[in-house]
Order: sequence, then structure tokens, then C-alpha cells
Amino acid sequence: MRVLRIGGALAHGGAGREEALFPKTRLGVLVSGRGSNLQAILDAIKSGTLDASVEVVVSDKPEALALSRVSKERAVTVERAPSDFEEAVALELEKRQVGLVVLAGFMRILSPAFVRRFAGRIVNIHPSLLPSFPGLRAQRQALEHGVKISGCTVHLVDESLDGGPILAQVAVPVLPGDTEETLSERILKEEHRLLPKAIGEFARTKIQKIMVSA
Amino acid sequence: MRVLRIGGALAHGGAGREEALFPKTRLGVLVSGRGSNLQAILDAIKSGTLDASVEVVVSDKPEALALSRVSKERAVTVERAPSDFEEAVALELEKRQVGLVVLAGFMRILSPAFVRRFAGRIVNIHPSLLPSFPGLRAQRQALEHGVKISGCTVHLVDESLDGGPILAQVAVPVLPGDTEETLSERILKEEHRLLPKAIGEFARTKIQKIMVSA
Repeated sequence: MRVLRIGGALAHGGAGREEALFPKTRLGVLVSGRGSNLQAILDAIKSGTLDASVEVVVSDKPEALALSRVSKERAVTVERAPSDFEEAVALELEKRQVGLVVLAGFMRILSPAFVRRFAGRIVNIHPSLLPSFPGLRAQRQALEHGVKISGCTVHLVDESLDGGPILAQVAVPVLPGDTEETLSERILKEEHRLLPKAIGEFARTKIQKIMVSA
Repeated sequence: MRVLRIGGALAHGGAGREEALFPKTRLGVLVSGRGSNLQAILDAIKSGTLDASVEVVVSDKPEALALSRVSKERAVTVERAPSDFEEAVALELEKRQVGLVVLAGFMRILSPAFVRRFAGRIVNIHPSLLPSFPGLRAQRQALEHGVKISGCTVHLVDESLDGGPILAQVAVPVLPGDTEETLSERILKEEHRLLPKAIGEFARTKIQKIMVSA
């Protein structure tokens, strides 16, 4: 009997039996701040709506509140000179056999070398409806441009600035009297819903593609 | 007794009386095609949801179906060499004392001189959530970019390409399997709702501003 162990799902292969299609996705989450999107992922895992595990949380700042959201052995701070920062992060992710890297409020731009190392396996959440307002302070850019609708985008990271393939988006209204803070807060609520959903869908699609092509 | 005649509204001024704040807006609509957005404006006027009148429809193509949507005396075709095309259009609009120029599927780019002549009084409807996908075939651009949400935008025309101040927007989902045609159709339905609403709101705001500053 063939036994397939795919992530967390144990399946018995063979005639007349179904094999597990959707393995649990091992996540590595890169953070710089309070980690509310990380919390949304943890909540979705806990409630059973996202079949994944957060294997490691890597912060470039030791004081990041995000680090306190997981157990000590899964919370890692990497503070090094820019030249070996990315190597250290990559080794952490590889050591934990991370399948998907999630940038959740991570405030550094990753080098093309890092992006190639995890090609097609890095997702980012950005607080605008890309391709509008890439880069920093997207909510302020939206207010300054005077759009009536903004939103957030989950996308794959490639070597462009916030320009990789879009996985999911949600629209959020800009209201009269909005400040950068009120708009950011309204968008953030949607980020918390969108990110776990997009991760789950992406993982399922990716596995299906692998199985179709196998 | 002071009698104010503001557009279509007749109001008697004076102590204890309300004055008409919202005059009927005299529209000039520039078209190149079938004029479904023109029809949406005409429908909104007929149903009483838009307090405006279409004084003239100007087409740069004699075969434009849009021309048949209004009476003959209000349907004008201007076909001239580019050099005097705009002058002829401007004279038509001025002759009819148009307060607001509406580009409704008008496929020419207007010169800075024309835009200045009607500064702050030209609105355009564009089939994307600007600033994403300005220019031609916005729906195809959206599909090619892979966005999950597009929409339409009503904006004031300035000397930039689809870059003037945004008046109103609505989001429209991009669905799996969408073609340029199916997405365009879905966005167009929202255009028909958005354009008359945005014209009405803009006219009211503009008049309020004039009265406040007077």
C-alpha cells in the first residue's frame, strides 16, 4: 500500500481510494511591526478556515510586537548588515521547510536574488488596488490622488515593486473626511479577511497544478 | 421681490422664502459611437433623477448611432480637419450655452486649448478604476494585468491623459473566464448608473461652491 504524507494530511493511495489533494501549507511569515495580518492568519488556522501552519515568524526588528504572537521557538529576529540579512532569513525559512513565504507588513525590499530563491512562493499584501499606488504609504497616495475607491491586493512577489501577479483583491470605499489613519484602518480590516483566504486558495491552486502536470 | 431664474428652476427670493439652489444643468454631450451613456443620461433626465437638459449632441462621426437619440436640431456632426474641428465643436457648445461638457464614448483626445476653454466643465467616463489603466482599451489592459477588481471612473478632464480630478468611481469584479467583451459589458452597466449620478452631484456641488463664494 502506498501512503502519501503530504503536509498534515495522511492519505492512503491505491485503487478505489482518494488521495489527499490539499496538503497543509508550511508558512514563513516576515514581519516588521505589530503583526495584525499574522494574527489574522493564526486565527484562520485556529478556526479551521485555513489549512496551514506558521512554522516561523521572522522579524527584522527585535521589538516587533508580531514576534509575541507565536511560541518562542518559532519567533526569530534577524538583524544583520544588509549584505547577509537576506542569507540569514533564507536559511531560517529553508531550515523550517517553508512552502510559502508571506510578507505581512514587512518593511524591507527583497533583492532579486532572494526573490529568485523562493520564486513563485512569496506573497505580499499591499494596501491599494494595484497597479494603483505601489510603494510606500499607499493609503496616503490614494487620498492625495482623490480616488473614491481603494482596497487591498494579495500578489506574488517578483522583481518589480509591487508588480507581481495578482492573486486576490478587495475594494474599499474612500469616504469624505477620511484621513490616512481612518482609511488605513478600513483597508486593514479587509486585509485581515483577504490574506488568509488568498493564501488558502493559492495553495490549493498550486497543488492542483502540480498534480495535473504530474 | 427678487426673482431668481437659475436654469430651469424658478424661485422667489426674500425673507422666509427658499431660493432655488440647484439649477438645471445644460449639457453638451460629445460622442463617437452608439451612445449608450448618452441614453443613460436621457433616461435619468426623463425619470427625474437628473435635473439637466441635453442641449446638443456632437459627434465626430456622421454614422454614430448616438445622434439618433435626440431630436434633429440637437444632433450635430462636426467633421473637419483636425485644425478647425475643435473650434467648430466649441462654437456649437457655446451657441447652446452649455454648462457642462460630457465625453460619453468620445474617441478623440482634446487639445489643451480646448480643455482650457471649458476649464473645470468637462467630464469624462473611463472604463477602469483610475489611475489604473488610463488610455485606450482599459478593459483589455485590466485583463492583461490580471486584476481581480476593475470598475469605472467619472473625472474632470484636464490636460493629462485620463488624469484629472476624480468625481466618482464604482468597482466591478473581474470574473474567471472574462473576455474583453464580457468585462466591458459588466463595466458598461455600471457606467450607465454612475455617469448621470456623478453629473448631478457635480452640478450641485459646483453651484453650492459658487453660492458660498458669492
